[in-house]
Amino acid sequence: MREFVLYSRLGRTDSSFGSLHDAGRLDIAYECIVASLFLSHAIRKDVIFHALLSGPPVPPVHLRIEGATLHDVRTDQQTWERILRKVLGGHTHPGIAADKTSFEALLKSKVEAFQTAIYVLEEKGRNIFKTEVSENAMFVLGDHIGLPKTVENFALRYAEKISLGKQPYLAASCITIINYLMDSKVCR
Amino acid sequence: MREFVLYSRLGRTDSSFGSLHDAGRLDIAYECIVASLFLSHAIRKDVIFHALLSGPPVPPVHLRIEGATLHDVRTDQQTWERILRKVLGGHTHPGIAADKTSFEALLKSKVEAFQTAIYVLEEKGRNIFKTEVSENAMFVLGDHIGLPKTVENFALRYAEKISLGKQPYLAASCITIINYLMDSKVCR
Repeated sequence: MREFVLYSRLGRTDSSFGSLHDAGRLDIAYECIVASLFLSHAIRKDVIFHALLSGPPVPPVHLRIEGATLHDVRTDQQTWERILRKVLGGHTHPGIAADKTSFEALLKSKVEAFQTAIYVLEEKGRNIFKTEVSENAMFVLGDHIGLPKTVENFALRYAEKISLGKQPYLAASCITIINYLMDSKVCR
Repeated sequence: MREFVLYSRLGRTDSSFGSLHDAGRLDIAYECIVASLFLSHAIRKDVIFHALLSGPPVPPVHLRIEGATLHDVRTDQQTWERILRKVLGGHTHPGIAADKTSFEALLKSKVEAFQTAIYVLEEKGRNIFKTEVSENAMFVLGDHIGLPKTVENFALRYAEKISLGKQPYLAASCITIINYLMDSKVCR
C-alpha cells in the first residue's frame, strides 16, 4: 500500500466555510487528493490519502480516503468541495472516513501494526533517486507553511527524511512526483 | 525556455460560462497552468504555457501565459476562473495574451523561428528516461479526450513522440512530472 499524509495546520474541521481556500486552505487538501488518487479516467486502488486537519473549531479531524473503495467522484474542485463539506458535516461518502485520530496515533499505529516505512519530505533529506523506498510506504507532507516543528520531530522518531531536490514544489506536485517515481520503479 | 501546450478540444472561447468545468473543461486548463508555472511560493520564470481552445463560439483562441511577466496570481481555482473569464472577455492581465493563432501556426513558428524541439506525449512514444530532451523544448498534450488525430498528425511533422510510461496520467500530472524530470536533469 502507498499512503500520503497531508498535515494541514489550519484546515477547517467543520462544514461551515465559504470556499475551500477560505477553509484554512482545504484547496491544498483537494489538490493533494487528486494528485494521490487519480489517473486519467481511473482511480489508484493501491493508494490511501490522509489529511490531518488541525484548524478550528474541533481539531484534530483525520480524513482517510481509500482508492480501493472510493466512488462517485470526479477530479474537479466543485465535486470535492461538496464531498468535503458533506463529510466534515458528519455525513458519509463511499471510501471516505472522518475520525478523531491524531497525527501521532496514526503514525504509531502504521509503524507498529503494519511495519509501514515512514518518509518525511524535506529539501535536505536523502535524495529520492538514491533511496530504496519500501513498497509499503507512507509519505508525510506539510501544507503551504510546512510541518510544525513538534509534528516533524515526532514523525522523525519513525521516519526517514527524503528529498525531491532543490526546488520548493507544491504539496500536490510532490505527491504526483512520488507516485510517478514509484510507478516507474526509479526509487525502489 | 520550457513550453507546454494544451490542446483543448472543447475549451470555451468566450467568457459566458458558469464554471470552468462546464466551459468545455477549462478546469483542466487551470490545472495545467498551475502545474506548468507554480512552485511553492514562486513562479517559474523560464516556462511559458499555451492553451489552444477549440470550443464554441469563436475557435481557435490561443492563450499564452508567460512565467517571466505573470503577476497578481495565486494557485487556487477561484483566482484562475476570474482571470480566464476576464481574458476571454477581451480584457488583459499581466503575463497573459489571447490571440487567434492556430495550433499549426504556433508549432510552425516555434520550429522555424526558434528551433524549438517539439515533443508529443504519448504512451507508445520513446521513454523519457531514454530521451535527451532539449533545453529549448515544447511539450504538446491533449485534454481528457486526447489529441484529435489530424492535430496529432500535424504535430508529428515536427515532433518526436515521448512517453512517461504505461500509466494514463492526467494532463496536469504529465506537466508536473516533466517539470520535475527536467529540473532533476534526468532526461537531458
